[in-house]
Formats: sequence, structure tokens, C-alpha cells
Amino acid sequence: MKHEQNLYLTRTGPGEPMGALLRRYWTPVLLASELPENDCPPVRVKVLSERLLAFRDSEGKLGLIDEFCAHRGVSLWFGRNEDCGLRCPYHGWKFDVTGQCVEVPSEPAQSGYAKKIKLKSYPLVEGGGILWTYLGDPEAQPPMPGFEWLNLPPGHLFVTKRLQECNFLQAMEGGIDSSHVSWLHSGELKTDPLHRATRGAQYQADKAPKFEIVESEGGLLIGARRNAEAGHYYWRVTQWIMPWYTMIPPYGDNALNGHAWTPIDDENSFVWTFTYHPARPLSEAELGAMQGGHGIHVEFEPGTFRPKLNKDNDYGMDRAGQKAGVTFSGVHGVAQQDASVQESMGPISDRTRENLCTTDNAIIMARHRLMRAAQALEKGGAPPALAPQCHAVRSASFVLPENEPFHTARPEALVARKGAGHISI
Amino acid sequence: MKHEQNLYLTRTGPGEPMGALLRRYWTPVLLASELPENDCPPVRVKVLSERLLAFRDSEGKLGLIDEFCAHRGVSLWFGRNEDCGLRCPYHGWKFDVTGQCVEVPSEPAQSGYAKKIKLKSYPLVEGGGILWTYLGDPEAQPPMPGFEWLNLPPGHLFVTKRLQECNFLQAMEGGIDSSHVSWLHSGELKTDPLHRATRGAQYQADKAPKFEIVESEGGLLIGARRNAEAGHYYWRVTQWIMPWYTMIPPYGDNALNGHAWTPIDDENSFVWTFTYHPARPLSEAELGAMQGGHGIHVEFEPGTFRPKLNKDNDYGMDRAGQKAGVTFSGVHGVAQQDASVQESMGPISDRTRENLCTTDNAIIMARHRLMRAAQALEKGGAPPALAPQCHAVRSASFVLPENEPFHTARPEALVARKGAGHISI
Amino acid sequence: MKHEQNLYLTRTGPGEPMGALLRRYWTPVLLASELPENDCPPVRVKVLSERLLAFRDSEGKLGLIDEFCAHRGVSLWFGRNEDCGLRCPYHGWKFDVTGQCVEVPSEPAQSGYAKKIKLKSYPLVEGGGILWTYLGDPEAQPPMPGFEWLNLPPGHLFVTKRLQECNFLQAMEGGIDSSHVSWLHSGELKTDPLHRATRGAQYQADKAPKFEIVESEGGLLIGARRNAEAGHYYWRVTQWIMPWYTMIPPYGDNALNGHAWTPIDDENSFVWTFTYHPARPLSEAELGAMQGGHGIHVEFEPGTFRPKLNKDNDYGMDRAGQKAGVTFSGVHGVAQQDASVQESMGPISDRTRENLCTTDNAIIMARHRLMRAAQALEKGGAPPALAPQCHAVRSASFVLPENEPFHTARPEALVARKGAGHISI
Repeated sequence: MKHEQNLYLTRTGPGEPMGALLRRYWTPVLLASELPENDCPPVRVKVLSERLLAFRDSEGKLGLIDEFCAHRGVSLWFGRNEDCGLRCPYHGWKFDVTGQCVEVPSEPAQSGYAKKIKLKSYPLVEGGGILWTYLGDPEAQPPMPGFEWLNLPPGHLFVTKRLQECNFLQAMEGGIDSSHVSWLHSGELKTDPLHRATRGAQYQADKAPKFEIVESEGGLLIGARRNAEAGHYYWRVTQWIMPWYTMIPPYGDNALNGHAWTPIDDENSFVWTFTYHPARPLSEAELGAMQGGHGIHVEFEPGTFRPKLNKDNDYGMDRAGQKAGVTFSGVHGVAQQDASVQESMGPISDRTRENLCTTDNAIIMARHRLMRAAQALEKGGAPPALAPQCHAVRSASFVLPENEPFHTARPEALVARKGAGHISI
Repeated sequence: MKHEQNLYLTRTGPGEPMGALLRRYWTPVLLASELPENDCPPVRVKVLSERLLAFRDSEGKLGLIDEFCAHRGVSLWFGRNEDCGLRCPYHGWKFDVTGQCVEVPSEPAQSGYAKKIKLKSYPLVEGGGILWTYLGDPEAQPPMPGFEWLNLPPGHLFVTKRLQECNFLQAMEGGIDSSHVSWLHSGELKTDPLHRATRGAQYQADKAPKFEIVESEGGLLIGARRNAEAGHYYWRVTQWIMPWYTMIPPYGDNALNGHAWTPIDDENSFVWTFTYHPARPLSEAELGAMQGGHGIHVEFEPGTFRPKLNKDNDYGMDRAGQKAGVTFSGVHGVAQQDASVQESMGPISDRTRENLCTTDNAIIMARHRLMRAAQALEKGGAPPALAPQCHAVRSASFVLPENEPFHTARPEALVARKGAGHISI
Repeated sequence: MKHEQNLYLTRTGPGEPMGALLRRYWTPVLLASELPENDCPPVRVKVLSERLLAFRDSEGKLGLIDEFCAHRGVSLWFGRNEDCGLRCPYHGWKFDVTGQCVEVPSEPAQSGYAKKIKLKSYPLVEGGGILWTYLGDPEAQPPMPGFEWLNLPPGHLFVTKRLQECNFLQAMEGGIDSSHVSWLHSGELKTDPLHRATRGAQYQADKAPKFEIVESEGGLLIGARRNAEAGHYYWRVTQWIMPWYTMIPPYGDNALNGHAWTPIDDENSFVWTFTYHPARPLSEAELGAMQGGHGIHVEFEPGTFRPKLNKDNDYGMDRAGQKAGVTFSGVHGVAQQDASVQESMGPISDRTRENLCTTDNAIIMARHRLMRAAQALEKGGAPPALAPQCHAVRSASFVLPENEPFHTARPEALVARKGAGHISI
């Protein structure tokens, strides 16, 4: 890859082609629990390098506006959230959830001065315990994403977000690249009792799967193929959905897991981890484990979204455990393992020095598709994967006769079916 | 405002037009207590982006010289202050308070080598418990400022300095802008018993004063007008004195208060707060409160001039107190409130994005006057407000018949009068 | 000195002329104790601005390779050191100590893919308790340095390394500049009982020695001359050996001491301190003192090579001790004294502002010689001081009749002589 291509793919601020593309998609920015009640404290949001402020007004309306007052540039984080608006602490200017200035106390109301003042603002909408925004051209605003976990019965879903201190792309590439699971996360595969009990677990001992990748409407279907009983293949199918979603093939009746990898700025990202079961509530044991930082969730530094194990403490590298094979990498926990390798590439991975191999085809195809979409948008084309049905999909694992194509042989396994469990062996 | 204008106003280092202007005025750099005795440890001084070292020699002479030895560039902070000079720890070169090298031990005394070596140096003069320097052309050195608090009887004055982590201009603009007091500091106005007892307090309930501003010899007279009894206005008059002084209109017989806002570098400032009573010593109660960080003074991180409540802890934002109206902004303390909003604008406020309104006229006029003075100086003109009588002024509050101009009707209220109290209703 | 010359002398990264010169010499990078056993954890190495990884494989072979995996750029610090290679934690690629990729698990072994992948690597060789590398053109690799302390009987040598937070050149200039000892370290000279007992100590009371400097094959012989008994000079002779070694003239039968000053990057260096006695093992008392941070060694922040006394705590500046003359500079310990003055010059000393004097001749000559060597190399010439005999030298102190040249009168004093003690009065 050329240096310019790497910049093209990884720069997401205002005015950048990739930034323009990403702005055409709904973006998760906050957990709904960060704005727990009407008139609660506003919350700073940095997304795609824009500094914004989210708040929930006296009537429960959600707003995402410029962080800084239109008057003299004070951060409205210091403002008062009251009477259906956020009031700047410096001179009392007041703004509603649309960014409209509704009061400039020093000016006569009849002057109409306030009406002329409006802060940049974006929609903020709840779905699946997450607050979503849309930063693009309002004329082109798509419907909300069609992920099944946005509309599950209570108790079926658990979501966390964590800070990852690198560009979103190299983080997301980890989600696309299922070949690393057999290495980086191999310790976890061995110790998870539920995984060990599955038939797939036997097959997965083969650490060198073959990959077949096909484009889906929303992104890519990434099939990892291993030998099963004679004349059959064991398939694990990962979904990549544009621009930043990945879904992990399930293990047995475990809940489904997926991620969104969203840019804070070009050197920091949020990793959203959603765990859900389409057919049953999550158990107390499952919830307790995830709240304790197990599975693909993490333990946090108190009051922050930064993991306790982070680059400042080398992710708690346990050399004795590494040597003993407790974990493959010496780092404990799937998410910390991912963060350790991905952040170690530097704030923005230098893709000009890569040597890609056959198992990197999914990554190559995802980069191409993102680049093509950004280039098409520059020429006035419409972005792909905006229709909700692009998101109403599932990852799955199943065994097929050798001659059956993985992406068409079990179509019901790869789509969301309301109330019906997922397919996993 | 254009970007270039913002840079012109806020860049204060050597070689910048605004830096050149500010260098023509005496500048407070240290509390006198920072150099408590002859041959005490030298103190690092950064002012207008220059790195200097202040020391007090064996005879009590004060010096402010280049921080770095003329020989090889070692910081003289590590030097020995002894026998009327500061000796570099590396090779024993010695400098006096004028920066003159008085000894190069390795060279024969008769070589005259030391005589040829001189560090940059500036005068350092005590006044009002503060050490002042003058960084400009020595030929043009003005007399010391004529503030009355520089020559008060013992016990009448209390001075502190605090670090503010932003450009001096946006900090000083807060001192010029008395319209913010009714908002940002409104909680403090309510709780100060002395203020509540004044007649002015009733009038000040009107949160939308009208402003009249006139140029004074030294800067601006900023009159805030509110309705009083029929046919009368209640006036609160703020003095801005070039280049960086502001004086707060008094409340009753409270002490007078003022500030100097001086650049450390372009992204950090010192806020000097002087509290004095022209006609009586400050009481034990007043001194105790200020030493405890009350009033417009602050509590410090031990051993530093950085407030305990600062941007790293969001100034101790108290959301419950904000909601309950204990304070308007949720931050406690007048100085911390100012710091919270002014630092939140960023290290250098982006004035190209402002929307100014009628209450900002004093700020606009002060910017213009600074800019005009810097431009005039570039063309060889002399800076304004150098004469001591420009500083021998007071802020005041009084009631006038509607038709009397605030800046001429009570001339005695707006000048310093030795031993006589200030005028405040 | 011109700004360009200062950059020429101090920039040591890949592609810089001085960087090219320094790469032609063996460079100490680790203490041997940092790789204590086969298959122990790898260690990050930053040297001359290159980020590398050192490891010791299952057979004890040492490797110094690119820190980052050839595949996707993950830091191999997180890798597994096992079975004669370092395995990347992400996808299991494996590299041997030469940087050769020996396994790409996802590719068929017969594809030969791994063979085509090779990381940048450098030799890593033990000598004198230190691991040395050579970063230059392999064709031009010189023999290992010929320092006598690389081949001493057990117990004769003690080596430490410490971080110094400035460019290597200003650190090394301190080692060349023996005139500072009488000032910066004068407190230490007074308190060292062994030093006080020597005849040289009487002479050294003269704080203004005369310097004579001659070029040696390997660098410079720097003679500091003081008056001794009538018609005689007391000489202290410092060796500077290209590109970054200095040797301190001894005090009595004390061990010999020397340094290597090597760039981590352009703003950080390692100071290697080697203490050895050619004729006897170091005593328990000597070793205990050095391990406790005495002599020219330091106490470290636990688990790091950063001294406990560092710029963040002003090196523990003891103003009372400074005033009382316990130390001259107020900083305790020779190494911390050096670090305090050298780091205070800034990350890269601004040599355009210097005023050099007669005692700086050795520094001037060393700079010239480095610059000439770098310029010659740019034109294809060979670097000096590569032959081991250039390093087989000693510093010394002796008394000579006035008319005898210091560099030829006592040739045996200035060379290493196996098993024979050094000459010092």
C-alpha cells in the first residue's frame, strides 16, 4: 500500500474523503446510560474529530450540539441544563437540543438576535441502549440501522464501549480477520467450557483454515473453512457490515457477539461490544461475567471507558502465564489481547510496510470496498449498506458438504429471524 | 475577527508586534515573598515567552537575567547565589544582577575575558509586594506604575498570583466584561452578606444592564447602568488600564479588588489579584478568608501557583450544587469560575467564531485600543498609558440623575485619593 | 557555531550523516543481565532512533531485530520466545535471531513464503557484561572494541547504564571536559577519603589547570596540567575515544572509571558507566557502594534505568547543603550533578549561543574530529578508531619535569597492560 492510500483510509476528520463517507452512516456515540434522566449533566462527545456536547432536556429530548458557545467559545459542558435548554455559564446564552439559540439575556427579546444564532447540531437517537448520531448531509439521512439487537425484548442485550488508543481501521481489521482467533485468543478457546463442549471446537483445533470471501449487500461474508467428517467442511462465517461493524461466529448456544469500531479522532477509537441472544434473555451468570470484564468485555479504570489493562501497564503482560501456555500471548482477556497487538502497531498502522498473505484477503477486500465507496462518494455516488436489511444479518457456524457454497447453502443461518435462535454447531 | 487579527492580538513573544507593545510596560513577575532574603535561592521566571532567572544578591540587589549561562547554556537555577553574584555550577562562571559576567575562573583575571560576557538582563523592582520587570527598550523605560496600592501603609494590601492555563487576552477580557458577573458569579453575589446589605445589591438584581464606555487616558471607563429610583441610574464603573489591568467596582465598604493578567507564554498566564482598602488595614477576618482561598482568591496545589481546582479535575464541578442553585455554574469560587470558562475556550480562544453582542462593546474597544497601540508602535509611535497618573484611578459605584454622564459627574469617585475611602453604595 | 553545524553534530537517526558515522561503531545497547537466560522475555531497544527488539533464543543465540512483525506491524515484544524463535502473538508468524521468518502458519510450508520474509536485524554480542550491536553496513563491520575491561577476570568490573534526557553530544562533552570536575564535583573530591590521601589531591586544589590536547589514534589525549614541586607539573590525562567513550583519570589505587554516551534518540541517551580495576577484583565495599548509587553510579527508579533524582524533582536540589558547601551545586552525587547541568541545557543544547574559552579546547577538537569523520564518510572515506588497539588505552595521572611532553613521556601509563595496575599519584 502507498502512503497516500493509508492516509486516505485512515483520516476521518471533516473534509477528508473517508471522513465524508463515514459521516453518511449512523454512528454510536454514547451509552444511553450516560444520559440517564431529563436535565442530567451534559456529556462531552468527540467523534470523527468533532468536539460536541450531548444532553437530554427537560422533556427528554436528546441533542448533540457544538461543544462551544456561539458567543465567546466557552465549553457548554459547564452549562446549566434546565427548562428545555442548555444555558452557558458565562453570560446565560441558552440553546435547545437543535442548537438553536433561544435566549440572549443581554439583548431585548424583540430584537430577534437569538433567532439568528444556531450552533451546529446533529440528531441523537436511542437504539439498543446506545445513542446514535448522524453527522452527514441531512438531506441524505438514512433510516436507522436494521440490526436485530436494536429491537430485542428486555434482558437479551448487553453493550459496553471501551477506548482503544489507535485508529479505527486497524482495530476493525482485527474484527474482520478471524484467522487471528486461533492464535491470539487460543488460550480463551481452550478454557471456555461452553466452547469446549461444541462439535466445532474439535474442528477448530485446525489452526490453518482456508478462507472464502464474498461480497454481501452490506459488506462481506467471510467464510473460514476447516475439514470436518469425510466430504464435509466446518464453516465459521463472519459478517463485516459497512462501514465499521463485525459479527463473531457463535460458539454453541452462547450469545452472539459483535462490535462497532468508531473513530473518536484519527488516533483513538471506541470499540462497542454488543452481546445478545435472539431467543432468550442473557443469564445472571452471563451478565455477571461481562460486568466483571470477562468474555470479550473488559474491566475499566473507574469513571472512564479506558481498560484497566492498557498500554501504560503493558496490558498486565504475564510472562509466566505466557510461558506456561495459560494464554498464548501472555495478555489476559480477549479484548485486551486485541488492544495489545493493535495499539502496538502505533497510533496509525503503517500499511506501507505490511506483508499480507492469503488469510488477509478479507482485510484487503474490506479496505478496497471502503476506498471504492469513498471515491464514489467524491464523485457524487451514493454510499452502500444504508438499507436496514443490510444489518439484519447474523454470523453462524455450520457443516456443509464439500461442494456446497457457504454463502448460499444455509441462507436462514445468515439472516436475523425474530425470536429464533442462531445456528451454531 | 480574522484569524490574522487573532494572532496579532494574542502572540506576545519576542519579535511579535503585541509582544513589542507589552514589553513597553512594567510587568509583575514575582511575589516579593518568592525572594525572601539576600542570597536566597534563585527563581525561574517565564514571562512573555522569555526564560529568565530572578535572584537577590548578598546586598539585597534584585536581578532578572537570562536563565542560561553564557558559557555552555546550563540553567543558572542550579547555581550558587553568593558574594554578590550567581555562580554557574558547571565551571564557576559568575554573574551579577545586571547579567554582567564578573568571573571566568579558567581565564586569567587580567585577560578581561569576563568583562566581554554579559547576559541579557532586565530591571527588577519591588512595589506593592510584587517584583516588577521591564522587558522593553531601556531608552524608553517609563516610571513605575502609579497604582495607589503600590504605596499603602502596611496591612492595607493582599496580593496573590495564580496560574491560568490560557492566553492572557481571553483571561483579561473576563475582567473587562462586567456583564458576566450577574451570571457566572451570581451565586456569590447572593451569598456575600456585605454585598447583600448594600443598596446597590437591590439594583443589581437587574441582570441586563446597559453599558456605556468611554476612553480614559489609561484605557477605558466601563459604565454599567441599571435603573434606580425614579429618574436615576445606578452605575457600576470598571476601569481597564492598558495593557492588562482591570479594577472591579466595589461592594459597600469591602476592600477594592483588581487584577493584572500577564502572559507567561502564549498559552499560559498569571492572574495577579490585589485586594486593598485605601482607608484602613484589612481585617483579620478578611485576610484569613483570602488566605483560605475565598473571595476572588484561590487555594493552591501545595508549593505551586496552580489552583487546586483546575481543568484536570473539571474545577470540582458540583452538579448537585449547580442544580440546586448554590452556584450558577456548578463551580465554586469566583476565580475558579472565571478559569473554568476562560480555559474551556482553549489555549488561545478562536475569535473568528465569535458572535459578539451589545454587552461586548468594552471588549471590542479594548481589543481595538491594544491593536491600534501595537500598530502605532510598529510605525514608531509611543505607547499610551505610561504616565503614573493613568494608574492612580479607582473603580466605583454610585447613583446619578439620568441625565448626568457617569464619567464626569463624580470625578472624585474615579481617582485615587490618598487615605480617603472609595465611593460605593 | 552555526545552527546547521549543531544539527549536523547532534542528529543521529537513519539517513543523517552523524547517524551514518555512529553506525560504523559497535554500540552498547543492553546490560547482559537484561537477557538473563535462554527463551527469556524479549527486551525493547531504542538506539539511534531505531526501534528494535532483543532476544535470546532457546540455544542462547542473541538477536536484535526490528521490533515490529513483518506481517501487519505488531510489536514482537508481545511475542512468545520459544523453540529458537520469536512468535508474533497475532497470527503466529515466527522469526529467528537473524530476523529470518521461519514460519507463516497460514501458508503451506512448501510455498516458501516464509523464506522470502526477513526483518531488519543486527548482530548482538556480549562483552564486558554488555550486549553490543553494530548497526552499520555489514561489509564494513569492524572487530569488537579492544577495551581491556571487556576481557578482565571475574569480579574486576562493574557496569551500569542510566537514562539521560538529552542529546548524547552534550552528555559526552561533560566527559571530555575535565575542567568542570574542580567545580561541579568539588564537594565529592573533598569527601572521598581515598582521593584526599593522594598526593595529586594537593595539586588539584588549583582550580585553574592548563590544558594541552593532542590527537591520539583513537581520539584525543587531554592533559590537564597543574603546578607541582618546583620545575614539575602534575598531569591528569583523560582519554576520549571515538565516537563516544571517555575515561576518567584515576585517583590513587581507586578503580578506573569510564563512560560510553550513546544515543537512544536525538533527545535521550544512555550513559554507560564502567568501573574496573585491571589488577585486582573490586572489593565488597566498592561494589556495595556502587550498587547503592554512590561514586559515579546512581540509584534508579525501581524497574527502570531512570535515576531517582531526575529533572522532575530538580535532582533533589538541596539548597541548605549548597549554602553550607556540602556540595558545590546543591545536587548530590557525581552522575546526578552531571545530569542536572547537561539536561538543563535543553534536549539539544543550542551551541549557537555558546561562549567557549580556553578550557573548552578539548570539546572543540572532539566536535571537529567527529564532524570531519562524518564528512569524510559522506565522501566514501573510512571512519577512524575502528582498530581494537585504539581502545586498549588508559587514563592516568603523574608528575613530570616541566619540559617533558605529557603524551610521550610516560607511554606505559597510557596503554592497557594486562594484569598491571594503572598509574596514579
